[in-house]
Amino acid sequence: MTQITISEVGPRDGLQSVDTILSTEGKLAWVDMEYRAGVREIEVGSFVSPKLLPQMADTADVVKGARRHPGLVVAVLVPNLRGCEAAIESGAHKISIPLSLSESHSIKNVRRDHPQMLEEIARCQALVDQVAESDRPCFEVGLSTAFGCTIEGVVEEAFVVDMAARVLDLGVAEVGLSDTTGMGNPAQLERLVTGIWQQCGESALTGVHLHNTRGQGLANALKAVELGITTLDSSLGGLGGCPFAPGASGNIVTEDLVFMLESMGYSTGIDLETLLSARAEIAKLLPGEEWFGFTSAAGLPKNFAAVSLKEAS
Amino acid sequence: MTQITISEVGPRDGLQSVDTILSTEGKLAWVDMEYRAGVREIEVGSFVSPKLLPQMADTADVVKGARRHPGLVVAVLVPNLRGCEAAIESGAHKISIPLSLSESHSIKNVRRDHPQMLEEIARCQALVDQVAESDRPCFEVGLSTAFGCTIEGVVEEAFVVDMAARVLDLGVAEVGLSDTTGMGNPAQLERLVTGIWQQCGESALTGVHLHNTRGQGLANALKAVELGITTLDSSLGGLGGCPFAPGASGNIVTEDLVFMLESMGYSTGIDLETLLSARAEIAKLLPGEEWFGFTSAAGLPKNFAAVSLKEAS
Repeated sequence: MTQITISEVGPRDGLQSVDTILSTEGKLAWVDMEYRAGVREIEVGSFVSPKLLPQMADTADVVKGARRHPGLVVAVLVPNLRGCEAAIESGAHKISIPLSLSESHSIKNVRRDHPQMLEEIARCQALVDQVAESDRPCFEVGLSTAFGCTIEGVVEEAFVVDMAARVLDLGVAEVGLSDTTGMGNPAQLERLVTGIWQQCGESALTGVHLHNTRGQGLANALKAVELGITTLDSSLGGLGGCPFAPGASGNIVTEDLVFMLESMGYSTGIDLETLLSARAEIAKLLPGEEWFGFTSAAGLPKNFAAVSLKEAS
Repeated sequence: MTQITISEVGPRDGLQSVDTILSTEGKLAWVDMEYRAGVREIEVGSFVSPKLLPQMADTADVVKGARRHPGLVVAVLVPNLRGCEAAIESGAHKISIPLSLSESHSIKNVRRDHPQMLEEIARCQALVDQVAESDRPCFEVGLSTAFGCTIEGVVEEAFVVDMAARVLDLGVAEVGLSDTTGMGNPAQLERLVTGIWQQCGESALTGVHLHNTRGQGLANALKAVELGITTLDSSLGGLGGCPFAPGASGNIVTEDLVFMLESMGYSTGIDLETLLSARAEIAKLLPGEEWFGFTSAAGLPKNFAAVSLKEAS
């Protein structure tokens, strides 16, 4: 059975997009419930200015709390070197920095053009390299707007591959592909993934961050796992998206993604029934927010566990 | 470019599931708007007892009106021989009869077990064969609950293939695979399609009817077209589903499906912008009904047409 890592981004990508400011205890309850369902990678917050995103002000405490779960990869997002310092200090296991391939989007989002961003990434990598090897976090660059941009429209595929190569040349171990604006399609995803693999090697790209903005999330996820991608970001109830790209909303829904993968015989390590219960409980922490997804409403098919086991055998 | 036929089922599958009884003029306006967007196969109604489904009482008139559009395949659903007679009489180009592979579902849905249904199908085929060749409609059996049943749970895959073969042995030219309950996954779809192809030949199965009950619709559709399936049923706004399978709802959304296929370089013949305008107009005919889909809310990506053309070249 192929193992797929579901990287839950709800506590970061979801919570930064909603109005409710969830307490540290609430965030840790969320992490705890997903951990009990079998989720083993969770992006718990981002180290951004609390003036910009007050929802994320307690990220260091959330990292500290989440690190108590054995075997859980505690991931965070950082926009810059200062965030990276705080992330290392917090003890996060995995640190991602987004690099928007649409330069207009990059300038709008983090006020840096491409040369400035590449310089910032190099500084972050140097900082990470200073950490003792036993404690060193994974450091990854998320290539956002890789499938298109609301401002620029088309983002050239050759440019995506070229920028991936430039990032890896800085000593970064891995890039991720992000469909920030939900414009991607499975054929495009295949061209981008194989393009980067051919140019930079398969270990340079193992994860994708897909959105469901135009309903294409699971179709793209299917193509990704069939190609050999092993980490998929998703958000419980599809909470969140990118607040900076107008019209863009909706991460892929963790529950529906797990349903697809487990039914197909992939192993996510996640118990779907426990995950659906977690969704119901976590939704209570965020009254008034819009939750997406279909499996939670329809419920699991009769004898679903038996089918999964059969597929697995 | 691979041509894919989108068979719009909203005027049948959608309207039979909602409370509003749309007038004949309203239905023909719906057909007309989708025709103008480039849709060339529409299931316009079903010949069922008007006591059971008063929404479908005017199907003969809708067929008559829809036949005015050159090149449009006017399709209908029939539950039995009597419906088949009426369908032939109306001049429908394509007639489908569902055969539920879950016998419990079949008995609950049409009060017939499998031997009775096979007998009814044979009678329908004989009736179709009596029509002069120039006017003879296509007659097709939709294998419903082929991916699982809310009552019986698992439907054995070998049984699906076996029943397909038994139907084809009656002289029926083609079967379709229906995920009535939205339990299907892409791996299962691949096994079922290739199983039927190996047993009965590829011309025996060219179309699938998928539901989005657990969010898997487009992932299954992607797998289907990659295998070589050339006709996909879908419903504008995802209207409808199966009213007889508790918990089952939600056809795949025509707009989101067309977005996927056209972005990937498949040719549907449909202009997505016109289709989105049609959705907005048709939704006005059905106030208070729930419409699904994401492309309509997000809008087309900037320079979408240019991208499609590029993919096509």
